[in-house]
Amino acid sequence: MISKEVKEDKVQLAHGAGGRKMDELIHFITQRIDLKTPKNGGYGLETLDDGAVVSLSTPYEVIISTDAHTIQPIFFPGGDIGRLAMTGTINDVAVMGAKPVAIALSMVIEEGFTFEKLDKILQSINAVSLEAGVPIITGDTKVMPAGTIDEIVITTTGIGLASRDRVVIDNKIEPGDQIIVSGTVGDHGIAILSHRVGLTFETELVSDLAPLNKMIEKVLEITTPKAMRDPTRGGLASTLNDFASMSNVGLVIDEDAIPIKPAVKAACEMLGFDPLHVSCEGKVVLAVEKEVADEVVSLLKKDRYGKDAAIIGEATADNNGRVVLETGIGGKRILQKPLGELIPRVC
Amino acid sequence: MISKEVKEDKVQLAHGAGGRKMDELIHFITQRIDLKTPKNGGYGLETLDDGAVVSLSTPYEVIISTDAHTIQPIFFPGGDIGRLAMTGTINDVAVMGAKPVAIALSMVIEEGFTFEKLDKILQSINAVSLEAGVPIITGDTKVMPAGTIDEIVITTTGIGLASRDRVVIDNKIEPGDQIIVSGTVGDHGIAILSHRVGLTFETELVSDLAPLNKMIEKVLEITTPKAMRDPTRGGLASTLNDFASMSNVGLVIDEDAIPIKPAVKAACEMLGFDPLHVSCEGKVVLAVEKEVADEVVSLLKKDRYGKDAAIIGEATADNNGRVVLETGIGGKRILQKPLGELIPRVC
Repeated sequence: MISKEVKEDKVQLAHGAGGRKMDELIHFITQRIDLKTPKNGGYGLETLDDGAVVSLSTPYEVIISTDAHTIQPIFFPGGDIGRLAMTGTINDVAVMGAKPVAIALSMVIEEGFTFEKLDKILQSINAVSLEAGVPIITGDTKVMPAGTIDEIVITTTGIGLASRDRVVIDNKIEPGDQIIVSGTVGDHGIAILSHRVGLTFETELVSDLAPLNKMIEKVLEITTPKAMRDPTRGGLASTLNDFASMSNVGLVIDEDAIPIKPAVKAACEMLGFDPLHVSCEGKVVLAVEKEVADEVVSLLKKDRYGKDAAIIGEATADNNGRVVLETGIGGKRILQKPLGELIPRVC
Repeated sequence: MISKEVKEDKVQLAHGAGGRKMDELIHFITQRIDLKTPKNGGYGLETLDDGAVVSLSTPYEVIISTDAHTIQPIFFPGGDIGRLAMTGTINDVAVMGAKPVAIALSMVIEEGFTFEKLDKILQSINAVSLEAGVPIITGDTKVMPAGTIDEIVITTTGIGLASRDRVVIDNKIEPGDQIIVSGTVGDHGIAILSHRVGLTFETELVSDLAPLNKMIEKVLEITTPKAMRDPTRGGLASTLNDFASMSNVGLVIDEDAIPIKPAVKAACEMLGFDPLHVSCEGKVVLAVEKEVADEVVSLLKKDRYGKDAAIIGEATADNNGRVVLETGIGGKRILQKPLGELIPRVC
């Protein structure tokens, strides 16, 4: 028997899109699974964070994060599904406050897929592995008959280590903490969509795909963020809403302070999207203590992947669980997660 | 540029089937990936075992194994894709000599898949989680447009812990060691195929899907196996060949000693399959010292999943890397891995 929490009989694309309908699907799944926390402590599914934590009887925790990558097209401006699969999972481990130490690589390939394309994808995977310093240590490969899977789906699972007191679960934001984003938002989703629909701009729109673990490690040397996440499906809006609800604070965000590339802004206006709902693949959002916020921003700016970093807002004691966007002309609006799908198969 | 080691331009179903052509695909993949071993020690992709080992600066090792499950039909006699996805990965961790402590669950679902079916699959997943005592601690869910994936693909990644000196990499078999199988072989593959083609037998053929971690833990209390693996794709023949080549010994196997259900034998004869090439999903093959072999078998027989356990052969100093099958009528033949696909999408 199907319980009441999903309104539909069938899974819709919107259920996978990182917005409020996605939350319904995740709720459907998680309420059917018992024993959400590892027996020896740690954090499990119940946190709904980017990964989970297995406690060992040592000062170290083992961090685990898994992600299936279904992007179409598999080669796109700024990268391919191999680079995406590696950076997505490395970043998910890194934003838990952990040092990624290993990747498990699972590929499901359509019969008839060319070895030439597989070769290119593996080169991208290997390049990220080398750049990020995270080895691929185990894997699995399945082949499905032609027509039963669209080219290739890659699931990567990342393993990381963090000292026990440094794990970043996104529930520790306090009023006054500053919200930082490491660069322009919406680049990835708009690059994929523009490529698909054949939009061209004077400036080429490319995905921001990047492994952020080394940049994040530098931040961890000076502070333990109160929350940290990479805004993928659902964009900055979903990340900020998760921060607000997990930490039970309000967030006030200055719309003008959010870095957005002019071409991304233009494409969003043309297509009717809110850039705050569009996915990034090489950005991190952090909540840090006010005292260290400027230092964190200047540290980020020194990194090739953080040069547009900016403080975009702060946490407040009122408006618990909500994100309030202060607009340029002095107005305010509640920033919600997108309801469902904006752009399918961007990750 | 594609190097010489694959003869074809395109991926074939046979490349995913667990036989010699699968070895070619795996070789294609692994030679494109650097840094195969975790920096701090352990065992990585280069072992080509069921999982990998991350060393911590403690007496414990972290074991990781990942598997994509693409079985069709997703509901079949003896189980469903949810039960398969859990048992497959739990067993892969357990045969590394580790205690599975957590599962990461990644699901890719076709748009239009019913919540009723998803509900059943999640119930199966949860039931195995409870039976095996292994919590699901993180996950990811993607939805792909109708027609771009056949129903659902589930990738599970298992994390386990083992004391450093008890990890079972399958390269330690020595002449005289005994080879044990925990029960009848070929049940899973033949159950799926019979169901697909509408074959019926007096005895129903059901998959042997089972989480083996608790049974294996009992064995680990009395000995550390020299090699241990669950024979899935490629069947017992592939597992024995991997044992022989990884440990650089010969294996002499008594064909009559291998437990096979009469209905499986009959179906194999009818369909022209060698049951030793057909996948199991609830069996383990072990190599142990001669002195403890009988004790291991009687221990296995006491478990609900091991009641047909038997010694089927032993390791020899000659015939390095080869598996010699002694047939009932006094003959001998080399038992090879299957070349390619017998039955697609059984796991």
